[in-house]
Amino acid sequence: MVDLYHAEPAANSLKTLIAIHEKGVPFTSRYVNLHNFEQHEPWFVKINPNGQVPVLVHDGKVITESTVINEYLDEAFEGPPLRPADPYGRARMRVWTKFVDEYFCPALSFIGWHYMIRHITDKLTPEEFEAKVARIPLKEQQDKWRAAAKQAYTQEQLDNWRRQVRVSIERMEKQLAETRWLAGEAFTLADVSCYAMAGSMPSRYGDIMNEKVTPHVMDWHARMSERPGVKAALAMPTPPSVREIFDAVRQAMSSGA
Amino acid sequence: MVDLYHAEPAANSLKTLIAIHEKGVPFTSRYVNLHNFEQHEPWFVKINPNGQVPVLVHDGKVITESTVINEYLDEAFEGPPLRPADPYGRARMRVWTKFVDEYFCPALSFIGWHYMIRHITDKLTPEEFEAKVARIPLKEQQDKWRAAAKQAYTQEQLDNWRRQVRVSIERMEKQLAETRWLAGEAFTLADVSCYAMAGSMPSRYGDIMNEKVTPHVMDWHARMSERPGVKAALAMPTPPSVREIFDAVRQAMSSGA
Repeated sequence: MVDLYHAEPAANSLKTLIAIHEKGVPFTSRYVNLHNFEQHEPWFVKINPNGQVPVLVHDGKVITESTVINEYLDEAFEGPPLRPADPYGRARMRVWTKFVDEYFCPALSFIGWHYMIRHITDKLTPEEFEAKVARIPLKEQQDKWRAAAKQAYTQEQLDNWRRQVRVSIERMEKQLAETRWLAGEAFTLADVSCYAMAGSMPSRYGDIMNEKVTPHVMDWHARMSERPGVKAALAMPTPPSVREIFDAVRQAMSSGA
Repeated sequence: MVDLYHAEPAANSLKTLIAIHEKGVPFTSRYVNLHNFEQHEPWFVKINPNGQVPVLVHDGKVITESTVINEYLDEAFEGPPLRPADPYGRARMRVWTKFVDEYFCPALSFIGWHYMIRHITDKLTPEEFEAKVARIPLKEQQDKWRAAAKQAYTQEQLDNWRRQVRVSIERMEKQLAETRWLAGEAFTLADVSCYAMAGSMPSRYGDIMNEKVTPHVMDWHARMSERPGVKAALAMPTPPSVREIFDAVRQAMSSGA
């Protein structure tokens, strides 16, 4: 019995959706609508006290953190290996998944929130918003929501996160000029982690990721996008209300608004 | 052939020194003096372009990132297992090691730098300091050094990092009230990661970690400190000049200066 609690196929939810489809593990999809703050509702916080998706529940065992979930999926289930067979290969893979978690993902996430939050808050009164925020278990997440809602990020902060996004893609380009996949000659969870972040970047960060400046990343992106597991993950439902927000953000980012 | 590049037995260097001693892997110790900025010297940046310790070199293969190194040590060498035998146990362990890397360690590190940097900079002219900083490969590390040197951290930032240290210890206390070790009933890399951070806390953060408020953490701390691998790691040399700085920092922190 496998239940995966996840949001639409983007960022950390996409990371786990790709792994579970690539591995071919049958699972029950439990969609959690982040835009309605469902991850902070009491029923969900009982499952993950941090109030975050994705969460995997396997025979009653609760596993949190997308990167941890992905290694678990590879260790606990039959199916094609998602990690190199040798310790050194796995170490190289983990340097990438760690880099995504500590550097690439936070940078993208802060920028994303900056553009997205207005579409969430404009449906709520300040009191309603504060009531939603007060329910968030992690103080760091509360701070992030409040700062984003006030559009308190400075241009210097936004520029710095954008620089970090660029550094991340440049690092991928350098690696992919040397090896076919990020951790060597085989597809691994390093590719899954990076694609979960970079998959939608051509439409949002076209100046950073394109055929001219990052040809190897674009070739890798095309190979990734053709994988059945990636296609299946991306085909997971996105509610129309969420899709509308994503479209508005994409438009705002590409016009620099 | 195993070479471990490391600083004195504290924080991330201690993390890897404990693992390598617990595992019983014979190695050549390569001490890198961070207080003399050796990790940014060209010979070292050739080994790790990020200019950071620890680094493991095994038969010519370079492995960076202490958490990645520790899993590698357990996978690549004979010796007592440092990770649970089952996937769920390993997932629980990795939630801890990840928490240390993303939350506990950064909080301690910013506070540590705030108190330590003056002992490094007071031996240098501003020009000499800037020349040292300009050599640091990672912009984030450059920013951190410059901000710390200017004592630019606000009381609000320092208070917030202190709160995060407290949250980390409370989280450990809660777990250790339920299980003997952090990832269950066996000693694992989760304990290694946490001890690398919390090991010296009783003398620096006596208000947060003591017999009264965190009895289970103190019991765990005593059991950890008695392990031969931990003892051997802590016995690795600390140069007198570095020990002097550590003593001054400990004194400043315990007096709240």
